[in-house]
Amino acid sequence: MSALADIGLIGLAVMGQNLIMNIADHGYDVVAYNRTTAKVDHFLANEAKGYKNIHGAHSIKELADKLKKPRRVIMLVKAGDAVDNFINQLLEHFEPGDIIIDGGNSNYVDSNRRYEELKQKGLLFVGSGVSGGEEGARYGPSLMPGGDERAWPHIKGIFQDIAAKADTGEPCCDWVGPAGSGHFVKMVHNGIEYGDMQIICEAYDLMRRVLDMSDSEMSDVFAKWNKGVLDSFLIEITRDVLKYNDADGKPMVEKIMDRAGQKGTGKWTAMNALDIGIPLTLIGEAVFARCLSSMKEERVAASKVLRGPSGANVKVHKEKFLSALESALYASKIISYVQGFQLFNEAAREFNWELNNAGIALMWRGGCIIRSVFLKNITNAFRQNPKLDSLLFDQFFIDAIHKADQGWRETNVTAFQAGVPIPCFSSALSWYDGYRSAKVPANLIQAQRDYFGAHTFRVLPEYASDTLPEGKDIHINWTGKGGNVSSSTYNA
Amino acid sequence: MSALADIGLIGLAVMGQNLIMNIADHGYDVVAYNRTTAKVDHFLANEAKGYKNIHGAHSIKELADKLKKPRRVIMLVKAGDAVDNFINQLLEHFEPGDIIIDGGNSNYVDSNRRYEELKQKGLLFVGSGVSGGEEGARYGPSLMPGGDERAWPHIKGIFQDIAAKADTGEPCCDWVGPAGSGHFVKMVHNGIEYGDMQIICEAYDLMRRVLDMSDSEMSDVFAKWNKGVLDSFLIEITRDVLKYNDADGKPMVEKIMDRAGQKGTGKWTAMNALDIGIPLTLIGEAVFARCLSSMKEERVAASKVLRGPSGANVKVHKEKFLSALESALYASKIISYVQGFQLFNEAAREFNWELNNAGIALMWRGGCIIRSVFLKNITNAFRQNPKLDSLLFDQFFIDAIHKADQGWRETNVTAFQAGVPIPCFSSALSWYDGYRSAKVPANLIQAQRDYFGAHTFRVLPEYASDTLPEGKDIHINWTGKGGNVSSSTYNA
Repeated sequence: MSALADIGLIGLAVMGQNLIMNIADHGYDVVAYNRTTAKVDHFLANEAKGYKNIHGAHSIKELADKLKKPRRVIMLVKAGDAVDNFINQLLEHFEPGDIIIDGGNSNYVDSNRRYEELKQKGLLFVGSGVSGGEEGARYGPSLMPGGDERAWPHIKGIFQDIAAKADTGEPCCDWVGPAGSGHFVKMVHNGIEYGDMQIICEAYDLMRRVLDMSDSEMSDVFAKWNKGVLDSFLIEITRDVLKYNDADGKPMVEKIMDRAGQKGTGKWTAMNALDIGIPLTLIGEAVFARCLSSMKEERVAASKVLRGPSGANVKVHKEKFLSALESALYASKIISYVQGFQLFNEAAREFNWELNNAGIALMWRGGCIIRSVFLKNITNAFRQNPKLDSLLFDQFFIDAIHKADQGWRETNVTAFQAGVPIPCFSSALSWYDGYRSAKVPANLIQAQRDYFGAHTFRVLPEYASDTLPEGKDIHINWTGKGGNVSSSTYNA
Repeated sequence: MSALADIGLIGLAVMGQNLIMNIADHGYDVVAYNRTTAKVDHFLANEAKGYKNIHGAHSIKELADKLKKPRRVIMLVKAGDAVDNFINQLLEHFEPGDIIIDGGNSNYVDSNRRYEELKQKGLLFVGSGVSGGEEGARYGPSLMPGGDERAWPHIKGIFQDIAAKADTGEPCCDWVGPAGSGHFVKMVHNGIEYGDMQIICEAYDLMRRVLDMSDSEMSDVFAKWNKGVLDSFLIEITRDVLKYNDADGKPMVEKIMDRAGQKGTGKWTAMNALDIGIPLTLIGEAVFARCLSSMKEERVAASKVLRGPSGANVKVHKEKFLSALESALYASKIISYVQGFQLFNEAAREFNWELNNAGIALMWRGGCIIRSVFLKNITNAFRQNPKLDSLLFDQFFIDAIHKADQGWRETNVTAFQAGVPIPCFSSALSWYDGYRSAKVPANLIQAQRDYFGAHTFRVLPEYASDTLPEGKDIHINWTGKGGNVSSSTYNA
């Protein structure tokens, strides 16, 4: 190599190798480094053979020396200590203004910290969600970079070149926001993925248990749905999965143990929502549904003693019910994304971030698991009004949810009559009915808390008076016995 | 004071003062200490005036010198650093074998740590949940001590003497288990309290919006319910709250702002459940319902654009519906406690604790917010079978839930038709229908995860074969295109 390279990459697992080739295919010079340096040589001699613009480095110093300034390096290494270790090594050879990008699955809290630490030292940290797996890394991932915005002009070209493209041709990569927001958005992406998968399962379960449909028939329904508002990667693969038969001609999916695994990002999303106080009910229920699925032995034992309706008890009109199911799926999905973007808004307030909501929806439109036609409507909504408090204030979604309302309710009613579990369909509908209620019954909670713990309450403006002043914490003696049962230890 | 005192207490806020008087009333000699020592003198000269067996200390050394050995001291101070600070001070004057009891609202994780730290030094740590507020502290709290079991024989007499008593006369205090388990149980108590309050709110909301009942009428319904299976402190105070009118004769509760506050223990409980993988759906939804209630302005705005059924649309038979509502409340409550005790079982596995489930139910039968007749049935179930995996395997609860099943379903159906939010009623029913399902649709999730991320799956035993071996992680090429879309970065 005569000239200096454009970017470096640390970590030559398959993801890293594929991302390097993707970058090289777009005409950039890349330097590859790996802690076990034999892997560098092996990669250059094999997968990268024939690429004149892929180079190797056998030390962090060599990597630093081979890069144009400001230096740009992407780490694709195991989340945790390995990231900090490489950052420390890079600091020995990098200079102020250089850019360190963490493309791994780091927790956003760590990325917040690393952003601050590098900022102190004059280096620019970027934490980027990368979604799309090995295939995506090779031919177009969804990229969600956030961190030090001064880095963006220096990496925008490469990142948008290698990213997946939406149907409009726009790259599925834009600047997310400050600090660890790129990894935060990736975390929520995974939480939404949990929700999308669970509502598909609920539709499948109802077709199976209420309509007694075969897998092949169900596959046809998903194929049809995939041509409408539900058009998405997950509906598409569900169509394929249900059609896939084992060698004996029986549907493979029915042979699979009904215990769902999880690797943690779904639960982190739900825990974060609880922590910052956003009702992310659909994802919460989706995570809990996976937990319940894991209790297989206990469920089998329970199924023998706990009676109740079974799907077969209920008679429905098949085509009408399938149409209702499509509405339930669509409406529940809308609610899940409404909740997800409310989480973004609250996180932005909590961490003092400015988040690019339209960009986030765009980044998810290609390359990643939750890619769907639907995300285009979200992009549009936020482009029309970047300060939108809620997607349910956008006319497209108002119309969509009104149209789906009846079928969604019918699905819930039928499922409860049939004894088929629908944790996400029902949670979404209850949330929706709560959200559109100017008054919810929390006034009674406040009265109870004031009764037993003197926790005080506020008055509704229309009832404000001298004895019930607006905007003040009010306590009354509910027992009328003089004194109260107040308490400083009740944390209700 | 000629002889040495039985126990010391640090922290003279009202809770601490009341607990001291409670202990003294039972014939024990108590030494009171407070960081601001003027408070000691003030307490002795006022509230404690006339008590010959309440003594003061003006330093930690004096406190230590005035106690019998092994020394026993209860801290009732602010959770957090203050607890560690006092422990460090006590360590300067206490000896191996002495007992330090934290009766504050500490996080159980801190209590786990303190238990280990004191154990290393030969001292016995006890973390005790204390519930019942000021009134309870004075005349009988619910006490949930856990930690170093060697301490129990030395504190059992005092603790059980001062505790509330169940209807059977048994003290609402027993040994919970090791390390931070006492504070863990107190945390879950508060989570259950959130759930109990929310399901009462849902019943109230349905009476109000579907039956258009007055608060006074609703109060009468709660009064009636309080004589049956729902007999409990929270139903009782709801009866009183709904009957309480402001000076203008209008029900006070209807003037209260419908934004519920929270102090954190409910959300900690739900976050812990997510973290250790137990589907604590009802408490999770109750916490989220409080979050949604806080979004008052957004709900008001949403109520103006989002249409849907309103309670008045639905016609029901009033007496029948009220009976269905009672069933929904009772069944949902059963589910909440089933889930809570599953959390205990999992926490016991996770932390290697042996927990006293029958004792926990007994401790909650008096003195605390969730006290109810119902808890006696739980005590009985665990006394008959201490190793019970689930309360739903106990015949009392099997019969109870079967009896409630129909009304519970009718309530859910009616609420969805009427557009009234029922996050906890519906979440409980979905969980129940999942729990009693030998097969849930998680097989489809596993197929999807294997399709897009090569996450592998297990086969159902009945379909095991040479190509699908039982107990092995299996991956198949779903696309049939050779290769897969596997990924190490999808954390689905």
